[in-house]
Amino acid sequence: MATISFARGAPSLDIVDVEGLREAAQQAFTNDPAGTTAYGTSVGYVPLREWIAEQHGVELDQVLVTNGSMQADAFLFQLLVNPGDAVVVESPTYDRTLLNLRNRGADIHMVELETDGIDADELQRLLDDGLRPKLAHIIPNFQNPAGYTLSAAKRAKVLEQAGEFDFTLFEDDPYIAIRFEGEGLPTMLSQDTSGKVVYASSFSKTVCPGIRVGYLVGAAAVIKQIQGIATNTYISPNMVAQSIVNAFVRSGRMDSAVQTVKTALRERRDTLVAALDRELPEARFAAPQGGYFMWVELPEGFDVAALQRAASERDVIFVPGTDFLLEGGENTLRLAYSGVTPEQIDEGITRLAQAARSLGVTA
Amino acid sequence: MATISFARGAPSLDIVDVEGLREAAQQAFTNDPAGTTAYGTSVGYVPLREWIAEQHGVELDQVLVTNGSMQADAFLFQLLVNPGDAVVVESPTYDRTLLNLRNRGADIHMVELETDGIDADELQRLLDDGLRPKLAHIIPNFQNPAGYTLSAAKRAKVLEQAGEFDFTLFEDDPYIAIRFEGEGLPTMLSQDTSGKVVYASSFSKTVCPGIRVGYLVGAAAVIKQIQGIATNTYISPNMVAQSIVNAFVRSGRMDSAVQTVKTALRERRDTLVAALDRELPEARFAAPQGGYFMWVELPEGFDVAALQRAASERDVIFVPGTDFLLEGGENTLRLAYSGVTPEQIDEGITRLAQAARSLGVTA
Repeated sequence: MATISFARGAPSLDIVDVEGLREAAQQAFTNDPAGTTAYGTSVGYVPLREWIAEQHGVELDQVLVTNGSMQADAFLFQLLVNPGDAVVVESPTYDRTLLNLRNRGADIHMVELETDGIDADELQRLLDDGLRPKLAHIIPNFQNPAGYTLSAAKRAKVLEQAGEFDFTLFEDDPYIAIRFEGEGLPTMLSQDTSGKVVYASSFSKTVCPGIRVGYLVGAAAVIKQIQGIATNTYISPNMVAQSIVNAFVRSGRMDSAVQTVKTALRERRDTLVAALDRELPEARFAAPQGGYFMWVELPEGFDVAALQRAASERDVIFVPGTDFLLEGGENTLRLAYSGVTPEQIDEGITRLAQAARSLGVTA
Repeated sequence: MATISFARGAPSLDIVDVEGLREAAQQAFTNDPAGTTAYGTSVGYVPLREWIAEQHGVELDQVLVTNGSMQADAFLFQLLVNPGDAVVVESPTYDRTLLNLRNRGADIHMVELETDGIDADELQRLLDDGLRPKLAHIIPNFQNPAGYTLSAAKRAKVLEQAGEFDFTLFEDDPYIAIRFEGEGLPTMLSQDTSGKVVYASSFSKTVCPGIRVGYLVGAAAVIKQIQGIATNTYISPNMVAQSIVNAFVRSGRMDSAVQTVKTALRERRDTLVAALDRELPEARFAAPQGGYFMWVELPEGFDVAALQRAASERDVIFVPGTDFLLEGGENTLRLAYSGVTPEQIDEGITRLAQAARSLGVTA
């Protein structure tokens, strides 16, 4: 029995435009052999940097293109977060962000994530009580792990808080381009009048993850400092990869490639929702309007760690919710639907429900 | 007047096999679309990892493929070097290594680099006097900045010292494949019986720098720890780039591509040596047998900082020797001949000599 993985936030191969990438690689080496093969500089491949600046309506010196957005995060944390520094994150949040902040010795404050984003009132109380974070990390669209999206009202509120209490608002936004339902909301970056936002995104979800190209946008002075860290870390990021991305995004194929991804993700989400309703009606969740992930809550007291073992015996894997929290969440899990076909989702949820039944879950 | 740069250690475009890279990119996307486009894992692209293991005659779990060897260095330093830790480096040594070790707060001990490599007797005295380094960083072939190569006898001696005094011997070897003269020497890695060597190299000099693919080879336990750091830093390195390198090195083109580089570098070195002998006989140097760099000493008391300014007015740039040292070396400079054609070398050295004359240098 083949393993069905709801664990990894990655697209399946069938929704990657391999032919478009192959063409883009040809163009990269043909049209700009010098820029593609040379070291370049730590700001990244210049034509791609220009494209990103245009997309966000910012100046060129506000953009740094990196080896994936994880590396971009690491640079930002290296610049801003020292041992003991207070940092605000969402609860739950991306496990690697949590781990990297812990490794830096940050004083982590998790603020409840509601279905319309971080609980801004709770954050306000913390700030009123004297918390002075160096940064707040927010994943505004189709959050990892929850799949929730920050509302327009809360975007405005958090921006205001960052301005008033002088902290960096780290808008970590890799999923923005893969909204398959509903209206998109303006980024906080685009509404930032006080230069508090540092924005990160990547091409992992629109081009492919193996290309490892991400970027930061922020105040020129901050980007300049991060550029220094980048130079000392790797001299320059991958020019071949960035040149391929540049050719890809400027080709006519980009839009249709993203449309393919969105169509597939919507179908996968629909299948997941239907399968859970049918097989495991005890599961509570808010269906995401984009992205890769859905957060599932099982009845209070239900032990997801035991479910993980029982599911694994049935060749189904997922990540327990506790991985995305500092405490609690023992009855929660994250289901990634990006890397599984509708057939696998149906079969996988059927097996997951059997595993849950074997542990006596009841509605 | 176009600027002639002896500053940057990078190949000129005419010695990069762009056509071979374009073909390799086609093969990467055609032959392994899944492995090329997916995240992969932090060990790197598996077929390339296998190729590297075979080349060095080591087990697979002794190899980690990274985003360039600078990043590999950074991982190793992150693992081993804490503030106050003693570290031995060559004098002079690669400026970024020096900078990164300083940024980590290392207690840096520079040991004289002779034309046959590090002064092993001086290192022995330091060890006898009680120095207990965490690691010694050695660039054995065509050292950056000096161009010197570590002799067989000294390789054996340093290996023995690492075993006896229990420090990591970091064999940083990016230039090994571009020896254009004389017999190659076995790596210290291949002679290491006590598991003290961590070996780094890269494809920047054989494929192209923009591809940013490097690697580490060492004891499996050390590689395992570095893999953990890599995962937390970037999840996985660039699979597209590594898959292209894999296709390239396994193609029939690799040998001829490297031969092209070697032929060109030898001609450039010859031209540089001849031009210096003709134009600036005051310059003292040992002609390298491979690599990109030559270290030049001007008469005692001559001010290379002033030469840098005078040369820059004549559109010639280079890196002063002081950048590669913690102190001293004011009369030295590094000339990189990898990125300049023989014509540019002739013209550049003529101008450099004029600049030196303007400052009153005499034989």
